[in-house]
Amino acid sequence: MAIERRETSEKFSLWFRKVLSEAEIVDYRYPVKGCGVWLPYGFQLRQNIISVIRGLLNKTGHEECLFPIFIPEDSFARETAHIKGLETEVFWVTHAGARKLDVKLILRPTSETVIAPMLKLWIRSHADLPKKLYQVVNIFRYETKATWPIVRVREVTTFKEAHTAHATSKDAEEQVREGVEVYKRFFDCLCLSYTITDRPDWDRFPGALCSTAFETVLPDGKTLQIGTVHNLGQNFSKAFDLTFEKEDGSRDYLWQTCYGISERVIAAIIAVHGDDRGLVLPPSIAPIQVVIVPIPYKGFEEKIKIATDRVEEKIGKIGLRVSTDNREGMTPGAKFYQWEIKGVPIRVEVGPKDIEKGVVTIVRRDTLEKSTCSEDRFEETVKSMLAAVEKALRDKTWAWLRAKIKSAETVEEAAKLLKKGSGIVELNWCGAEDCGLKVEEKTGGRVLGTPVDKTPTAGRCAVCGKSAKTTIRVSKAY
Amino acid sequence: MAIERRETSEKFSLWFRKVLSEAEIVDYRYPVKGCGVWLPYGFQLRQNIISVIRGLLNKTGHEECLFPIFIPEDSFARETAHIKGLETEVFWVTHAGARKLDVKLILRPTSETVIAPMLKLWIRSHADLPKKLYQVVNIFRYETKATWPIVRVREVTTFKEAHTAHATSKDAEEQVREGVEVYKRFFDCLCLSYTITDRPDWDRFPGALCSTAFETVLPDGKTLQIGTVHNLGQNFSKAFDLTFEKEDGSRDYLWQTCYGISERVIAAIIAVHGDDRGLVLPPSIAPIQVVIVPIPYKGFEEKIKIATDRVEEKIGKIGLRVSTDNREGMTPGAKFYQWEIKGVPIRVEVGPKDIEKGVVTIVRRDTLEKSTCSEDRFEETVKSMLAAVEKALRDKTWAWLRAKIKSAETVEEAAKLLKKGSGIVELNWCGAEDCGLKVEEKTGGRVLGTPVDKTPTAGRCAVCGKSAKTTIRVSKAY
Repeated sequence: MAIERRETSEKFSLWFRKVLSEAEIVDYRYPVKGCGVWLPYGFQLRQNIISVIRGLLNKTGHEECLFPIFIPEDSFARETAHIKGLETEVFWVTHAGARKLDVKLILRPTSETVIAPMLKLWIRSHADLPKKLYQVVNIFRYETKATWPIVRVREVTTFKEAHTAHATSKDAEEQVREGVEVYKRFFDCLCLSYTITDRPDWDRFPGALCSTAFETVLPDGKTLQIGTVHNLGQNFSKAFDLTFEKEDGSRDYLWQTCYGISERVIAAIIAVHGDDRGLVLPPSIAPIQVVIVPIPYKGFEEKIKIATDRVEEKIGKIGLRVSTDNREGMTPGAKFYQWEIKGVPIRVEVGPKDIEKGVVTIVRRDTLEKSTCSEDRFEETVKSMLAAVEKALRDKTWAWLRAKIKSAETVEEAAKLLKKGSGIVELNWCGAEDCGLKVEEKTGGRVLGTPVDKTPTAGRCAVCGKSAKTTIRVSKAY
Repeated sequence: MAIERRETSEKFSLWFRKVLSEAEIVDYRYPVKGCGVWLPYGFQLRQNIISVIRGLLNKTGHEECLFPIFIPEDSFARETAHIKGLETEVFWVTHAGARKLDVKLILRPTSETVIAPMLKLWIRSHADLPKKLYQVVNIFRYETKATWPIVRVREVTTFKEAHTAHATSKDAEEQVREGVEVYKRFFDCLCLSYTITDRPDWDRFPGALCSTAFETVLPDGKTLQIGTVHNLGQNFSKAFDLTFEKEDGSRDYLWQTCYGISERVIAAIIAVHGDDRGLVLPPSIAPIQVVIVPIPYKGFEEKIKIATDRVEEKIGKIGLRVSTDNREGMTPGAKFYQWEIKGVPIRVEVGPKDIEKGVVTIVRRDTLEKSTCSEDRFEETVKSMLAAVEKALRDKTWAWLRAKIKSAETVEEAAKLLKKGSGIVELNWCGAEDCGLKVEEKTGGRVLGTPVDKTPTAGRCAVCGKSAKTTIRVSKAY
């Protein structure tokens, strides 16, 4: 096997780093900690993923724009909970040239306080609402824990943040639901499975009324947060004095929401679908969907070239991203190895025997199954195989996730399950913060919150034994 | 007229700012000086322009990647001329959270010193060469002069920088030529006219052996630099110890080039093509290429809707970006006004009389000519009209540029011409730096350098009277 991927955190971490390097996704050997370089292949993967979310947001009436990176200190400090939650992890720009700046600048860790002063200029009345904006930018967090490629970095190069403003609380709630729906479709497209959890009060986004988060479970059983949706209520609009004229002529503060997705989804795709041979990419976002490897054979050079060109043309015609590997001085086996690491969903081999029979050999990356297909049925075979790959990946990750969610009666049992590598453990919970924090303390896990899609429970709180109101989820989290 | 655009710097500046605001391109009312917001329409324009340059670079074997924003102080200081030329205008990150950073970080003003340490890891031998990379990122310059929307800003949101490494000096020179050719094609696509000038020795990119620049002339006669191509020789490779093994087994330092284009091209497009009614956008990059405005008429509502849908479908089918303005409570005239400000190349009006005759009314934004065309010849008419718009814009800006280049015998004459609003004045020059600097001093202009495409001159230096070696260009520059 090329790269061993095992279900322990240590092995998984080794596998992940090795795959990032060998598949040429990112290179973190840059001389600033927590900062990496997206390599051409990784960059293309990233671009394809961004395209998917852009498409979904544009289709639902979100408008893309681009806001500045700098936040003046006084803007940032306006919303009290916001600055309190983030001030320990922001980067400060204090000088320019040889001059000390009059107002210190923060590199955006998120853009609520960047957008607020502009909303103040743009929104006058209910007729300007709703306002649904988003941007895809780099953000900055001074991570003090050990950094982890793509997952815990200091320059998050890829942060899609949507910010919306509404006339009523109800509209904002409705928008939260739309945000959740958009993200569901996004993750479905990426063949990622997920849980949706309302974060507990003590772990909301700084400045939010409530936060809802998407998690997926990585191969080592730890959860990775891959998206969040927040109802900001009027916290920021009050701090920034963002008012508007209502239909009845009176004034109110804006109701706001925001929701974000970062390059962590890329880490999730790599981690969840990959195997011992490297990446396994969902067809919708693979930089190359079909790779053609000609199998050279003496005396057949011309015939193989003609057949290869014909196959490439056929795939190009049905609108797929295709590449032919014509490199010289490399064996087909070495090429197979490389394209497997890079996770190309389908490999087509064109060799002398196949040509004689009028067939091509097709290999599926996810199952490594090899089959032949007659050249005249080639396009439909490739298309349906890509659809099958997509379905298989989706089914597999959902099955994986379901198996990784366990219930426990007691906190001790939960701790044991987490230790054994269970992804998410659910417990009955009375709803008290004290009990929630005790779950964290006793399991060494992180309380994710309460499932959005679960009905109230009838049992007793796993901590205090009082009547339980709901279910609480706990996991070891990245 | 909606917005007066006159050929004086003051009027032009007013016009430019007003157009940016009314056409909803960017909003610079953000509370940090020199930082603006790309609004949805401006953002789309920007995206389309980036797509064009991406296409040209990808086609010529450049690979897109993404490098970090932070440069550690010691990396930045390695190439002496580089830090000397840029240190007065860089932003410094000195703190994170409450901590003072051990190594101060610079926000990239350009990325030679970001890429160098990675090239050291990636390039071992001639087989790894050439390496042709590029990225599209934000860069930062602490402008101390008055900022100017898009043109002179502190966060340049859109910097396309290409960086290449080669095995020989000749290859690097060849690459400079390719860079110039790519940029020519890019500007042709944007219908921009340009001069290409080799910068004088005292005004090269910090760290470069030689710099070549593209300039266009704005309506007030001032020049705007819209692209630069640099041969870096071995300056950076020696500073960063970037060596490789040559074919004969010996080692040499890399030969490097870099070339950049910023959002200034967007300013150029707006400035050069616009008129008193607002933007005039080249079809290839217009966010909306054809706008349809239905002309409501009582009793004809259904017919107009059907005809509008049919027209929109026809345009969509030929792959154009089309939008129908169905807003209620707005007169067609108000809609015309708005789409004219936004520079949409073609407006189609669908009214009751037209429907009866089986025709549609088409209005060209650049000439404001109105014509009718029968519905069955509609697609070809729109297509050929867009081509005509493109050609007309290109011809017009080239005619404008040519008229703005003048020759002068003496420095005094050059000063007078510049004062009268001539764009670029050419003088005979002996080649001495002293004489070049005197030209700047006496004309109050900036010496752009020597034309790349001009043969040596036989006259005498306009400053010292000695035998002239070449021509020098001087302009008032943004």
